[in-house]
Amino acid sequence: MSRTFYVNGEFVAEADAKVSVLDRGFLFADAVYEVSSVLGGQLIDNDAHMNRLHRSLSEISMQAPATDAEVLAAQQKLIELNEIDEGLVYLQVTRGVADRDFGFPANATPTIVMFTQKKNLLNSPQAKTGIKVISVPDIRWQRRDIKTVGLLAPALAKQAAADAGVDDAWMVEDGFVTEGSSNNAYIVHHDGTIQTRHLGNEILSGITREAVLRLCGLTQNKYIEKPFTIEEAKNAKEAFITSASSFVMPVVSIDGQDIGDGEPGETSKKLRELYIEIAREKGTFSHVQE
Amino acid sequence: MSRTFYVNGEFVAEADAKVSVLDRGFLFADAVYEVSSVLGGQLIDNDAHMNRLHRSLSEISMQAPATDAEVLAAQQKLIELNEIDEGLVYLQVTRGVADRDFGFPANATPTIVMFTQKKNLLNSPQAKTGIKVISVPDIRWQRRDIKTVGLLAPALAKQAAADAGVDDAWMVEDGFVTEGSSNNAYIVHHDGTIQTRHLGNEILSGITREAVLRLCGLTQNKYIEKPFTIEEAKNAKEAFITSASSFVMPVVSIDGQDIGDGEPGETSKKLRELYIEIAREKGTFSHVQE
Repeated sequence: MSRTFYVNGEFVAEADAKVSVLDRGFLFADAVYEVSSVLGGQLIDNDAHMNRLHRSLSEISMQAPATDAEVLAAQQKLIELNEIDEGLVYLQVTRGVADRDFGFPANATPTIVMFTQKKNLLNSPQAKTGIKVISVPDIRWQRRDIKTVGLLAPALAKQAAADAGVDDAWMVEDGFVTEGSSNNAYIVHHDGTIQTRHLGNEILSGITREAVLRLCGLTQNKYIEKPFTIEEAKNAKEAFITSASSFVMPVVSIDGQDIGDGEPGETSKKLRELYIEIAREKGTFSHVQE
Repeated sequence: MSRTFYVNGEFVAEADAKVSVLDRGFLFADAVYEVSSVLGGQLIDNDAHMNRLHRSLSEISMQAPATDAEVLAAQQKLIELNEIDEGLVYLQVTRGVADRDFGFPANATPTIVMFTQKKNLLNSPQAKTGIKVISVPDIRWQRRDIKTVGLLAPALAKQAAADAGVDDAWMVEDGFVTEGSSNNAYIVHHDGTIQTRHLGNEILSGITREAVLRLCGLTQNKYIEKPFTIEEAKNAKEAFITSASSFVMPVVSIDGQDIGDGEPGETSKKLRELYIEIAREKGTFSHVQE
């Protein structure tokens, strides 16, 4: 079945889902995006994604192309039209179409596109085995807190992982892990304490990260927000990543060295189960007390 | 007159010049580009631009979408169809269309788009007055030698300049100027020596930069390739930038302080005139001995 896409207010067939070559998303990566997961046909934590979208837009002085209610209605219609029980809804906003010039155009209308992807999120084979990662230098720009489509560096990192026969790459800057190619990175210490990098311009403020740190209260894991090294990760009890498309995903190997016994760790599995349980039941984590 | 664009082998009206929203140029900034200037209907230094395009493609493991002869024929046809006597030909190559996933798609066909812009290059009003610049932190990624469309940081820098009421921004990293938002940066010392940053991953290897350094032999200016500070620039005799669209453009003010007497300098003017003379006569600088 060919998918239906959303482009600037219209629902169109995938083959017709096009933008001008003068769109600033195409010429300048002058665009931001969000990816929300869908379970049982319901958007997960979508309000948090919309909040982050507004922050990204604001940081680069870009206008919102539609109200949140209009965006939500379009997301829901795409889920319905494309029969998404489990998968993702992708949303991208660009500064719009204008003749090519670096400075912002005076009167461009923002472009908004959305599309869906069916994806096996709950029973992902990777969640059973865990994923293997390599470390690569973090060569991205210095505003990774803005979720822009300037994603060539992460794409190159992900491809370097594939070329090395593993699943993903953890990016390292000044000796410390920043994040995965498209996810936040965590280690679990032998005393059960969970560690992940603190927020700042160096990493994206993950929506799933926020949810999982709240869940630590329920699983009675302490957590600290502080950078860690690849060496610390190799010696940790467990490691995992979080993202809207992977939820909580165990990491079992870094640069060829097993973490713990090389199997998904208990804490990672517990957090994954709890995340999925609450996501399916409530669709949000805003009620979970930290 | 509406322009004719080139999209994947077809010449189409501007309104029909579109790419899929799944194009990796739109979703990941997974694309590289070149801009060649046109004088008297002739492409300037186009072979050098094509050589740099091939290097950019190679650095990110991307295939060329067409032979150089095919690209040149399309560039020339666009110049003819759009009646470009003076202006620019823009060329962008992306990794192609594939469902969204960070790693490289297995079988995508590269996308190639080209379009023209009419532009007053020879008698640019800015060349008469010189341009004013501000300094901004260089927050770009660490492979600026690859000419990718990940241009949000330079666009933000250019907009910051506009907001400050000036023409451009010089980007500063670790205390030294890297380059302008879309051009290489130079100072002229009081003894006539020209200084510009050395090549490396920190800056783009400018085609006009290469040409202008060759011209220094003809104007009997010594040059050194070494980073300089904003303070050194403020105290220089002259400053200028080079790019395919500005040729040699005098800089008369940095962060509100006049360079020299605040007028375009003699060396900058001489290099600009010589560049234009040879460009119009020969269309290339490869014959100029360094």
